[in-house]
Amino acid sequence: MDEIAREGVCGLMDILAPGVRPGSDVAHLALLGYDPFVYYTGRGVFEAAGSGLKVGPNDVAFRCNFATVDENGVVVDRRAGRGTYGLDTLASLLDGLSLRGSPDIEVIFRATVGHRAALIFRGRGLSSKISDTDPGKVGMRSLESIPLDGSFEARKTASALNEFTKSAHELLKRHEINEERVKRGELPANFILSRGASVLPKLKSVSERYGFESSTCIAEVALVKGVAACVGIDIVDVPGSTGGLDTDVMAIGRAAVNSLKEKEFVFVNVKGCDVASHDKNIRGKIEMIEKIDGMVGYIRRQIDLKETIFVLTSDHSTPIEVADHSGDPVPIAIAGSPVRADDVDSFNERSVAKGGLGRIRALDLMPILLDLMGKARKFGA
Amino acid sequence: MDEIAREGVCGLMDILAPGVRPGSDVAHLALLGYDPFVYYTGRGVFEAAGSGLKVGPNDVAFRCNFATVDENGVVVDRRAGRGTYGLDTLASLLDGLSLRGSPDIEVIFRATVGHRAALIFRGRGLSSKISDTDPGKVGMRSLESIPLDGSFEARKTASALNEFTKSAHELLKRHEINEERVKRGELPANFILSRGASVLPKLKSVSERYGFESSTCIAEVALVKGVAACVGIDIVDVPGSTGGLDTDVMAIGRAAVNSLKEKEFVFVNVKGCDVASHDKNIRGKIEMIEKIDGMVGYIRRQIDLKETIFVLTSDHSTPIEVADHSGDPVPIAIAGSPVRADDVDSFNERSVAKGGLGRIRALDLMPILLDLMGKARKFGA
Repeated sequence: MDEIAREGVCGLMDILAPGVRPGSDVAHLALLGYDPFVYYTGRGVFEAAGSGLKVGPNDVAFRCNFATVDENGVVVDRRAGRGTYGLDTLASLLDGLSLRGSPDIEVIFRATVGHRAALIFRGRGLSSKISDTDPGKVGMRSLESIPLDGSFEARKTASALNEFTKSAHELLKRHEINEERVKRGELPANFILSRGASVLPKLKSVSERYGFESSTCIAEVALVKGVAACVGIDIVDVPGSTGGLDTDVMAIGRAAVNSLKEKEFVFVNVKGCDVASHDKNIRGKIEMIEKIDGMVGYIRRQIDLKETIFVLTSDHSTPIEVADHSGDPVPIAIAGSPVRADDVDSFNERSVAKGGLGRIRALDLMPILLDLMGKARKFGA
Repeated sequence: MDEIAREGVCGLMDILAPGVRPGSDVAHLALLGYDPFVYYTGRGVFEAAGSGLKVGPNDVAFRCNFATVDENGVVVDRRAGRGTYGLDTLASLLDGLSLRGSPDIEVIFRATVGHRAALIFRGRGLSSKISDTDPGKVGMRSLESIPLDGSFEARKTASALNEFTKSAHELLKRHEINEERVKRGELPANFILSRGASVLPKLKSVSERYGFESSTCIAEVALVKGVAACVGIDIVDVPGSTGGLDTDVMAIGRAAVNSLKEKEFVFVNVKGCDVASHDKNIRGKIEMIEKIDGMVGYIRRQIDLKETIFVLTSDHSTPIEVADHSGDPVPIAIAGSPVRADDVDSFNERSVAKGGLGRIRALDLMPILLDLMGKARKFGA
C-alpha cells in the first residue's frame, strides 16, 4: 500500500461531507459517483439485489434477519444466535408465500449471508413508506409495521408485511429444522425481522454514465454487491471470500487481476477491517490490514501502471475506539499514468493528509478517474 | 515565482471541480468569479468580443476557421494550412455580405489570429440553438447547420448560416488572393467553417459586481480577451505579444506594471506554456516557464506588496503527457499584505499542495481577493 502511495497522489476523502457518517451502501453509491442525497432509497433494495434477486420497478424490498422470539413473542436474539443451520430450507418455505389479505402481492424470500435474508414484495400499488418490524434490540416484541404517510399504498404494504411476519412465525416456530437447531444447541430461527423498506432508485448504469465498456465488482457482502448490481456492474463471486477475518484475500486479488484482463473498470471491496473494528478486535484488524497489504502488493505486481489506474481507498472509517462507522475522512491514493505524483511515501491517515489531492469528496473520485482515463469531456473551448 | 510562493500563501485550485476539464473561456469566467455552469453560452461570443467586435444583445456569434476544401467540397485542411496570407482581404469580402434568404440579418466578419475568424449575425429573432458546420475533421464535406430546437428562430439562423457558408465559398474559391496563395505554395483559404454559435451571456461588469474603479486585461488570445471584454474589463494590446513561444513576455510585464499605476485590477494571461504542452514540446514549455519566471520577477520588483496583492496561478493544467487540458488542480500563490503566509517556499504543484490555502476552487478566488483588498462586505453583524 505504501508503494501505491509513493507512486501516486494522495489525500483525504470525505465520503459524504466532513463529520457525516456513511453506511456502506451510501458510501458505495458516493464512491461510484451517484449522490446518495439524490439517489438513496434505503438499504433493502441493495441487500436484495446483492443476493442475486432481480429487483423490479414495482417492488418493495426489505433487509431481514432470522431471529429468535420466546413463547410470548419477545425477541431474545435478533440474529437467531448467528447459527446458519437450515436457513436455506426455512427460507424456501417463505418464498412464494400467499398473503390472504393481499393475494395480488408476490412474496420473494431468500436467505443471504449468515442470519440475513432478503424479502421482496412484488405487485402494483405498493409503497416503501412503512416502518420496520425490527425493534433493533432484544427484550421486546417485534413491532407492528405502520404506514408512514396517508397513502393507500403504504397502508396496504404495511398490512402485508404484518401478515407476512405473522404467517412466517407460524410456519417457522414448529418446523423440524428448528427442533434440530435446538438439539444442536443453537437458537431456533423462528421469526423474521424486517427493516429498510425501499424501492429501486432510478440509477443510470456506469456504462451509460461514464462510457465504461465493461465493469466488474468483486465484493464480499450483499449490500455492496447490490449497489454495484443496481448501477449495471457485473458481479463476480469469489470462492473463499467470506466477508469475515478468515476471507481469502489472495483469491480476491487473483480474481481482480483476472477481471482486469477483460474489463475496463474493476471495483473490489474487502470487508474484514470493518468487521474487526465493529468488534473492537484490534489484533484482527491489524492482521486484516496486513493481508490486504499483501493483496495490494500482488495486484500491483501484476499490472502495468502505464495502462491501469490504481485507486486505493476505503468506503468509511471504522475506528476501533468508536467500534462503528465514523465521520472521519478516509485515506486515498491514486497511482498510474498520467497521475501527478506527490511527496507522500506511506499509506496512512496522517501521511496522506499532506498529499497532492488535498481533501476531496467521494463524488469527486469518478470525475478524477475519468480525467485520468482520458474519458472526460472538456467544458468550454 | 518561488519568491511569490515564499512571501505568500499557496494552495491547489480546481478551476471547476476535481477532475473536470476546463476550456480557456470557461476557466477565465470562473477565475473572474462568474460561474460557468450559470453563465457560459458558448465560445463564439468570446472569440468575437476578443477580436474587438462589439457583441450586442441580439447577436449570434460564431468562431470560424478559414479552411480548404477540394473541388468536391471535401475538407482537406480545417485551417487552410495555417498560412495567413491575404486573410484580412478575404475577410473584408465577407464582412457585410447580404443574405438573400435573410435580408434583415447584418453579417459581420473579421479575421482574427492565424487562420481564425469571428462571425456575427445581427438582427432580431435569431437563435444560437443551431449545429456547427465544422465537421471537426478532414476527409468529409462541411456539415449543414440544423436547428437544435423547434423554434422559428433556430430554423432561420441555421438557414442563414448555410447560405452564408455557400456564398462565402463562391466568393472565396476563385478569388485572386487564393490564386496567389497557391502560387506561394500555400493552401487556398476557400471555405469558412463555423462552430460554437452563442449569444452574449448576461454578465454584470467587474465594476458593478466587485466595485473595481478600473480594470485592465492583458491577454494574448482573442478567447481570453473576449471573456474580459464581456465583463467590462479594458483590453490592452501589447506589441510583441504573439500568443506563441516567441512572445515578448517582458513587454507584457512592462505593460502590466504600467497598468497597475492607473488601474485597480490588472489581469494578465500568457499563453505559451499551453501552446507548448498541446504540442508535447517539453523544451519549449520549460523555456516558456523560465521566461514567465523572469516576467514575474520583474513585476515583483516594480510593485510594493504593502499596496498590491499579487496572485500567481494558471487557468488550467495542460500536462505534456496528456497534450490537452486536464482536470488536475492548478497551483496558486497569493502574496501581499494582509495575506496570512504559509511555509511553502517554491511555486510548483507538489509544494503548493502543502500550503495554507489547501484546495480551493476558482470561484473562491475573487472573494479571497476582495477580502484581501478590503472590499468584501461582512455577512452578519
